[in-house]
Amino acid sequence: MAQPLGEFELIAALREKLPLAGPRLRLGSGDDAAVTVPEGATATSVDALVEGVHFRLEDGFSLADVGAKALATALSDLAAMGAAPGEAYVALGVPPDLGEAELLALADGLAEVAAATGTAVAGGDVSRSPVLSLAVTVVGHAPRPELLVSRGGARPGDLLVVTGELGGAAAGLLLLERPELGAGVGEETAERLRHRQLRPTPRLRAGAALAAAGATAMIDLSDGLAGDAAHVAAQSQAALRIDAAAVPLAKGLAEVAAAAGRDPLELAASGGEDYELLAAIPAQRLTEAATRIGEAAETSLTPIGEVGEGKGAEIRLPGGGTLRTRGFDQLGPQR
Amino acid sequence: MAQPLGEFELIAALREKLPLAGPRLRLGSGDDAAVTVPEGATATSVDALVEGVHFRLEDGFSLADVGAKALATALSDLAAMGAAPGEAYVALGVPPDLGEAELLALADGLAEVAAATGTAVAGGDVSRSPVLSLAVTVVGHAPRPELLVSRGGARPGDLLVVTGELGGAAAGLLLLERPELGAGVGEETAERLRHRQLRPTPRLRAGAALAAAGATAMIDLSDGLAGDAAHVAAQSQAALRIDAAAVPLAKGLAEVAAAAGRDPLELAASGGEDYELLAAIPAQRLTEAATRIGEAAETSLTPIGEVGEGKGAEIRLPGGGTLRTRGFDQLGPQR
Repeated sequence: MAQPLGEFELIAALREKLPLAGPRLRLGSGDDAAVTVPEGATATSVDALVEGVHFRLEDGFSLADVGAKALATALSDLAAMGAAPGEAYVALGVPPDLGEAELLALADGLAEVAAATGTAVAGGDVSRSPVLSLAVTVVGHAPRPELLVSRGGARPGDLLVVTGELGGAAAGLLLLERPELGAGVGEETAERLRHRQLRPTPRLRAGAALAAAGATAMIDLSDGLAGDAAHVAAQSQAALRIDAAAVPLAKGLAEVAAAAGRDPLELAASGGEDYELLAAIPAQRLTEAATRIGEAAETSLTPIGEVGEGKGAEIRLPGGGTLRTRGFDQLGPQR
Repeated sequence: MAQPLGEFELIAALREKLPLAGPRLRLGSGDDAAVTVPEGATATSVDALVEGVHFRLEDGFSLADVGAKALATALSDLAAMGAAPGEAYVALGVPPDLGEAELLALADGLAEVAAATGTAVAGGDVSRSPVLSLAVTVVGHAPRPELLVSRGGARPGDLLVVTGELGGAAAGLLLLERPELGAGVGEETAERLRHRQLRPTPRLRAGAALAAAGATAMIDLSDGLAGDAAHVAAQSQAALRIDAAAVPLAKGLAEVAAAAGRDPLELAASGGEDYELLAAIPAQRLTEAATRIGEAAETSLTPIGEVGEGKGAEIRLPGGGTLRTRGFDQLGPQR
């Protein structure tokens, strides 16, 4: 059996796998700190994935999936600002039973998303931990701070738009936990749904397109449409009204939800982890936004409601009444 | 019993405790990402503290100590670059048995160090975790990238200097684990040694002074003098020769080491966690460095050796021979 690598050898091996190039990076991993020369404004966010809380390896997450998802979900916050991805810093907690091959597989997943998005992994920290955990800090860039889109700028009269389709990640999780729920959908659809859960795509090009088109507020759908819309409403001091009938549902969601005895709309609204973007945009900018999203060729754009006077977010059901759900609470019961 | 706070209420409560003001901060915690407008260069580093690995609450760490130490040790990396502290981002892993009062105490510790150093806590993430963990990313600033000091610039002929006294943190840990070892030192000294372990001070002013005085390489002593000197040697492709007799030892270290049957020099060289700075500096700049350190009024400065041709780091013992020790391996056996 190979001699286990020590901390410094392991870090060196991990570092070799990870892209370090970045236009703003002057000094990368391996010193006390990375040195960058940002121009304009930076957007910085940190997100953690913890084994047993955010993922379970026994559900079918590979180590590469975990690495990829940790970076992708962190980058999703930059997408929601309309920022261009720049650098990532990864604090890795390694349980004693995790071997080097597995750690390197995790680095492969990180590297895949880093390469696909043009993110430099500029620094990190490795320590022992009872469970696998990754805290990923990402830094994005924009020429000027006013080009970055906060959650707080939605104005009455703005339209609400959402990228892509919702509920896929929740359906994918159901399929990972209970494969028999996929009997009613084809294998290709089932695989696509699982992929939504395992390998979310940060909507960086769509976020940049929406920011350029004049989005007034934006958020990524990590906790679920209902909860995340409520955040925008609170920060914007406005009311968000969403038409349930307009919400684009992931293909196969209806069948999987039916097999699980769940409401597909409830899964789409509160399942979370779709990492699509919800944006408010003045009505006269909708065409430009749609054009730019089309050019970005990453995902679709669907109007789903509007911003009004008042407060809170509601999802109006087709038959009357509203759906009120709570988003995924990170401190709630573990999975 | 009070209803436990949900994630969002807890984050709001934590946020209230933490200083958010910062000259470069345009949008702080509570959005998808924080927005800053850096000028010049940034230095960014991430450091994690994990319960059972880096600290044990049963050793006498209060929650405030843990919060303070997590931020202080991350900032120590900025000190080692000569960067001015700017913003911090905290990924907090919260075990189920940790109450709100304890979390708020932890935030108090974080806030204390943030206020003392002028650091804005600009963002964070809270999630469930089997043990308490904090991954802290810090961003520091300098007008130009060439003003930041890497580990790689030490040149043959440079002097080696160290700030403060070494071995205090290791002696403090021994006292926390076995209070009876303090019988030979006064309570005031014992308290100071424990404080070195519980509440390290990032040498930000000293680091800035050394950078301004022309330090060619710098590192903070987190793993221990021997291991950290080896990092500088490797990055600088030079040999670091340290005179053991010149190394400033913490007051009380000798007595505590004797009571524990340990070699004080070995504790000072490999105990780690002193978070003093080791720097290489051209001989003709030593006086200026000493003057600037004196003006910074934070700590002392001691010449302890020199840089030569070759590679590796060695600590030469007074009676001949060298001390070769390995630094603290983050992936080694748990405490």
